[in-house]
Formats: sequence, structure tokens, C-alpha cells
Amino acid sequence: MFPRDIIAKKRDGKRLTDAEIRTFVDGVSNQSWADYQATALVMAMFINGLDSREQHQLTKSMLESGEVLDLEAIDAPKADKHSTGGVGDKTSLIIAPLAAACGLAVPMISGRGLGHTGGTLDKLESIDGYKVRLTKAEIISTVSKCGFAMAGQTMKIVPADRKLYALRDAAGMIESVPLIVASIMSKKLAESLDVLVLDVKTGSGAFMKTLRSARELAKALVKTGKAFGVKTEAVITDMDEPLGRYVGNSLEVFECLQIMRGEADELMKPTADLSIELTARMVFLSGLEKSIEKARSLCRRKLADGSALEKFQENVRLQGGDVSVCSRPKSLLKAKVKKTAIKAVASGYIAGMDTRAIGDAVALGGGGRMLASDSVDHAVGFEKEVSIGSKVSKGDVLGHVYLRESKNLTAIERMLGDAYKISRSKPTSSPIVRETIG
Amino acid sequence: MFPRDIIAKKRDGKRLTDAEIRTFVDGVSNQSWADYQATALVMAMFINGLDSREQHQLTKSMLESGEVLDLEAIDAPKADKHSTGGVGDKTSLIIAPLAAACGLAVPMISGRGLGHTGGTLDKLESIDGYKVRLTKAEIISTVSKCGFAMAGQTMKIVPADRKLYALRDAAGMIESVPLIVASIMSKKLAESLDVLVLDVKTGSGAFMKTLRSARELAKALVKTGKAFGVKTEAVITDMDEPLGRYVGNSLEVFECLQIMRGEADELMKPTADLSIELTARMVFLSGLEKSIEKARSLCRRKLADGSALEKFQENVRLQGGDVSVCSRPKSLLKAKVKKTAIKAVASGYIAGMDTRAIGDAVALGGGGRMLASDSVDHAVGFEKEVSIGSKVSKGDVLGHVYLRESKNLTAIERMLGDAYKISRSKPTSSPIVRETIG
Repeated sequence: MFPRDIIAKKRDGKRLTDAEIRTFVDGVSNQSWADYQATALVMAMFINGLDSREQHQLTKSMLESGEVLDLEAIDAPKADKHSTGGVGDKTSLIIAPLAAACGLAVPMISGRGLGHTGGTLDKLESIDGYKVRLTKAEIISTVSKCGFAMAGQTMKIVPADRKLYALRDAAGMIESVPLIVASIMSKKLAESLDVLVLDVKTGSGAFMKTLRSARELAKALVKTGKAFGVKTEAVITDMDEPLGRYVGNSLEVFECLQIMRGEADELMKPTADLSIELTARMVFLSGLEKSIEKARSLCRRKLADGSALEKFQENVRLQGGDVSVCSRPKSLLKAKVKKTAIKAVASGYIAGMDTRAIGDAVALGGGGRMLASDSVDHAVGFEKEVSIGSKVSKGDVLGHVYLRESKNLTAIERMLGDAYKISRSKPTSSPIVRETIG
Repeated sequence: MFPRDIIAKKRDGKRLTDAEIRTFVDGVSNQSWADYQATALVMAMFINGLDSREQHQLTKSMLESGEVLDLEAIDAPKADKHSTGGVGDKTSLIIAPLAAACGLAVPMISGRGLGHTGGTLDKLESIDGYKVRLTKAEIISTVSKCGFAMAGQTMKIVPADRKLYALRDAAGMIESVPLIVASIMSKKLAESLDVLVLDVKTGSGAFMKTLRSARELAKALVKTGKAFGVKTEAVITDMDEPLGRYVGNSLEVFECLQIMRGEADELMKPTADLSIELTARMVFLSGLEKSIEKARSLCRRKLADGSALEKFQENVRLQGGDVSVCSRPKSLLKAKVKKTAIKAVASGYIAGMDTRAIGDAVALGGGGRMLASDSVDHAVGFEKEVSIGSKVSKGDVLGHVYLRESKNLTAIERMLGDAYKISRSKPTSSPIVRETIG
């Protein structure tokens, strides 16, 4: 089977066989396919689509291209959560310890931030000494000891995904449902899970801007998870404004610690609520509780009584981080950054936010990555002082930007000021959880 | 303008602006676009198509990416012929000297063979010493002296095409009308022509298997030529069997010399007829004769009186080749090759030939290229003893294969035997020239 023949088949809109898809994924993994040949096929897949059998086989071939975690020695149900990415989307830092406190084992393999979206690994590295590069054996041992581990993808887990993701990013081929599904699910399936809850973001800060496209992706993810024998559920959640109070790596860790310490303010409440909801779904799906209501109660209790914080502290210690951050979260804010207020240019109600622009502004300030190879300044970020629906007067502070250098300050201030839409009438509020697909 | 944004636009089926197409072609020429980014856009163009304005701009940008020939110093009308490629398609070797003998200037930039199709440059290199790598200045001086030059594309003429063609070949993106048009026409327009005649092949040995697809390509080629101010005509011609008697480099030069020497046999007649017809169209379009009939008479006369042969001999001398080949064409056949007969397995009429398989068999025997980097054995080839419509008895010789080594002999013999379709009823014969589009 020559690459050009497989490419030409999909180019002409025909269905690929299991063997052809396997040949492609193996060729990407062992580099016998040139980058441009892989790109040609991915573009043909993007435009002409994959049917459900092809999508299943693509996920399967990618999964089989690498190693999987062997968690047989751990008795607890294995569960994880994955988010399609947003701005201020920090729930993983609460969900992993909370789920562990409820009795689940969470082998959470996460990614880094790119463009307007943040990444769990970058957030964790705000904690001095915290190590996210774990070997397979270290991941398994950390999960055994404290109920969860948070680590980057090893070189041996789904090697084809690393290459394909880089090509998709550089050649404008990100937003394709079958390609997103194969990329996410092959990595999550390599975690040998019993339960997977997917947080599919929709709105101005999400990849899936419309509820319709989010629903399409959510359905495809759930279908694939179930086909591989994993209890899978997707929750479509709001990304029309940054989640919670803070955007930016150390600021987001600070917010999560405040929540786990029972010191959350009103603007942090959506982060706490969504974390509880997603963890409760993991607990219920795993069979640890008989109803979703009981699962929610358990999660609320384990968050309130400090059990989640205790698990988090144990994990920070095991992964080499400075545990003092758990007792003194404010130490995360001590960095010498300049805090600049963004003020309302008119009076009225906050009717909308260009959430992607807020994420882009933080990235431009050094708090995120424009290119995958960029480094990140963990202290840079944004703080919300108002939410959609808040009433403001001209000159009121809408938020603050935290910057190390003032180089791009004017551009960043303008981006953030322009990101707010102020209107005379109060907008109708929408719940964080829009739909559940299971 | 980022590559990924231009790629995403065509991916989503939108029209590219002139500036976006120019950015792409420049990026390919100066290598600021990665191969996989160029491939992604070419695949999106292949699947989603280009409208006539985009196609015009793609040709224009490719033309402008390199140098053009400056033939202002030559008074004669500048004319050329280009064929879309076939098996035994050797007319260039007769057309160039014949057109020159009729008073045209022919700056013929040609290519090499690939897959089942032959290439003019390979054929010419059957002549000892013949040099096809000419500089721009050498091309111009050779045309001035003998009326025509036959050379390979220099590095500086349409540099983007070389790269794009290689990517299209390796990644299954050859058969696209807008991409073929831009590739052919940018190179032909760089010859600064007044007149261009296109020989669009159709049938079992052509890239365009059906008359419909050949017609679509022919129309697009003619439209583009005219848009750039070149008098352009396309002739759709038969490629349901190899043209003339021989397939293979030195064998085809032998056939052309026999025709120019007035020693052609019946099986070579289609080669002579098509060469006369295509040259006559160049002569008529250029205004050297008032009617196509008069142009045909002139061509027949210049072929019969030895003028074309004289021009060919002059060119061989100027391009460094051994001119003795013109007086002793049989010297081309002296190579130590084994001649094996292919025999009829049944009695009846030759109803069809798998012309592509014949070309592939010659390539497999070393007479052509499987990969662009392969070398070619000029002595390897195939000789027809019958044509479509011939009546044969079981055991009759259908043709001969000329091979250097007998390594793949069994496979090649089987390919050639299987290429003939013998039926009980006489097939209806079709003319070589199917349609003219002008």
C-alpha cells in the first residue's frame, strides 16, 4: 500500500479500510510517511470526513501505536476528566484530588497551553519544584499512593498524536471532529479508564463556538468512549466568559487552593460548582454512589472538609513540589508583576465578553504560548472583577491585568477593554452546564 | 498572512485572493512555507477546486516566480506544442524541426518520463553526446541558429513548479485540472510564445481517460493561454494504443528519423500524420499560411523534401550530439538487447490495448522511471506489429519487447500479453484527432 494510493482514495471521498488507516498511523509513528504525505491525508480527511467506522479505527490505530498504562494493581475504579480547552479553565486541579478523596483513581495525563487556551501542566509548574515529567512507572506509583497523578504525555504513549497534532496546528487543520476525537480519545484510552467525563466547552472562548458544533463533538467523543468499553459522558459547558476569577497559571492555582481551603469568593464559585458537578459525574458513573444527587453530596462534603486539599498536598509532595503553597496560597501572588486596572468605558450591564481575546491578551503578555515552542511566564494573567450580567458604571474596574514587562501593555489593555460588551439592558443569564450527553 | 489562515480558507471552500495565491507561490519558491503546509493547501485546492480567477492567478504567480525567455531578437513567430503525455508519444522530435523548416521559432522546454509516460529529454539523450541542459542564453542562441532548441527546464524558470510537482506526485495529487493547467501553462508562458498548440491525450494510456475529462482540461488550457495573449488551440488525440510503431527512447528516435528520411512504414504513419497535423496548426495560427489546408500542404512538403531532417541534423550538431545518427538511424538499434516476441493467445481482431500497462511494462524493464530519481535504459522498449482493428490468428506475433536483462522478463511478457484484448468482431476504428478546441 503506497501512501499516494491511500491519500488519493480519501481525496476522492472514498472510505478507507482498517488496514489503510493502520498503515497511515504506523507510517506517521515510524516516520516512513513524510510529513507532507501525512498532511495530505489529514487534509483529505478534514474536508471529506470519516465515517464512524473509520473514526473508530483511527482512534484504535493511534492507541495501538504506543504504550498504555497498566493500572491492574489498583483496586479503585479508574476515572478521568478531559476538557476541550478554554480560558481560566482550571477545574482539573480540583477534580483530580476531589475524585481521589471520593475513592477514585485518577491517572490524569494532561497537556500544555497553546494560543488562548491554558494547560494543566503549565499551571502545576507555578508550584516550585513540581515535576510533570513522570515515567509510566512513576505515574502508576503516584496514583497508587495518593489516588491521582498529573503528568505530561510520555514519548511512548500515542506517539502518532504528537506528530499529527503539530501538523494540524501548523497547517490549519485543528477544528475537525473526527481528528479531535481520535487525538483526545486515543490518549485517554491509553490511561486504561473505567470512567471518562468530557467537558466540552462552547462559546466565545472555546474551539467549538456554537452549541451545535459542541454537541456534534460531544456525541462523537461519547460514542467512541463507549465503543472501547469505557463508561463515558460529556457535559457541554459555558465558555462565553473566563471560568472563575482568574486567568493565568499561578493565579489559577491560587484560585483552586482558595476553593479547596474553603476561602472562595463569589467570582470563584463557578469554578467550584463546575468542579463538583464533573467530579460527581465521575463518582456516579463509577458506581461509588447510587445516584447523581448522592454523588454531588459526597463531593461537596469532601471539598468542604478539607479532604481534597489533603490529597492535593500529598500529591504535591509526591511530585516534588513545595507543599507550603497549600497553607500559604498568597505566596503564588508575590511575583513582581504590575497590576493594571481595565475600566468600563460606558455604564450599563456586561452583556458579553470576547473570551478568546482575553486568552490571547494573556498569551501576548507572556502568560501563554503563541507557538508550541514558547516558554510561559507563570505570574502573568488576568483577574475578573465582574461577570456577564454585572451592572457597571463608566470608570468602574472590570478587571486587572498582571504583567511582568509593560512592553505590550497598551495593546493588551486595548484588547482587554475591547473584549467587554456593555449594553443598556440586562442580558439573560445562562447556566454553566448547558447539556449532558451520555 | 499566515500559511495556516490561507490553508484554512481554501479548506473551507472559500475563494483565495490574488495576494493570498501570490503569498503561497512565493512561499513555495523561497521555501518559507514548509512542504507539509504547501501540501495541505494543494490538497484543499484539489478537493475544493479553484475558480477561473484563482486558476489565472495561480498560473500568473507561478510564471512570475521565475525568469522568462527573452526572444525579442528573433523575428520569426514563436510557437510551441505541448502534450499531456502518453505512450510512444514522440511527435515533438518531428514537430520542432518541421515547424522550424516552415519558418517558426520553437523554444521547446520539455520534461522527462515518469511512470508509463515517456519524456522528450530522455529520448534525445539516446543520441550520443546530445546535451539537454542548456542555459537560457544557449536556448536563445540555438533557436536563433536552427529555428528550435530542445532543453530541460532551468532552475530559474518557474521554480515553484518543480517543488509543487514533486509534492503532487508523492502525495497523490496529480489529476487536478487547475493544478495541471497552472503547471503546464506557467512553463509554456515562460517561453514568451505567440502560438501554442496543446495535444491533450485521451484513452487507456492517458492521464485523462475519458473524452469528457480531456475536454475539460483542453478548455481550461486554451482559456488560460488566451487570457495571457497567446494564440492557443488544443487538439484532443487518441491514446487508446501506443502512437506509431515503437515505445522506448532510442526506438522512438529511430522511428522519427525513419519518418523524416521518408522511410516510414505503415505502423509509423499515425506518428507522421499527427506530427503534420499539430505542426500545421502551429503554422496556421501563427499566420504563416492563410488556411489550415495550405499549412498542411506546407508541412507535408517540408517533411517530404528533407527540410525537417536537415533542421534536426543542424540542431543535433548545435546541441552536441552525434549527427551520424541522422544518416544511419539503425545505429540506434545496435544495443545488445534481447528481442522477445509477444504472441496472440487467440484468433480474432485486436479490439483494444491497455496502453498504460504497455508503458508500465517498458518502465519496469528499465526503459522508463518508477521514481523521478531512477535512471533510464535507452535501449529498452516495445515494438508493435499490429494495431487496433488488425486481424490475428492464435500464435501470431503481436509485438516485441526489447530488454537488457531478463530479470523481470516473465512478468513483463505477461503484462504485455494481457494488454491485448482480442475479440471475434472487428472494432470500429476511431481517428487519431478526436476534437479541436480553440
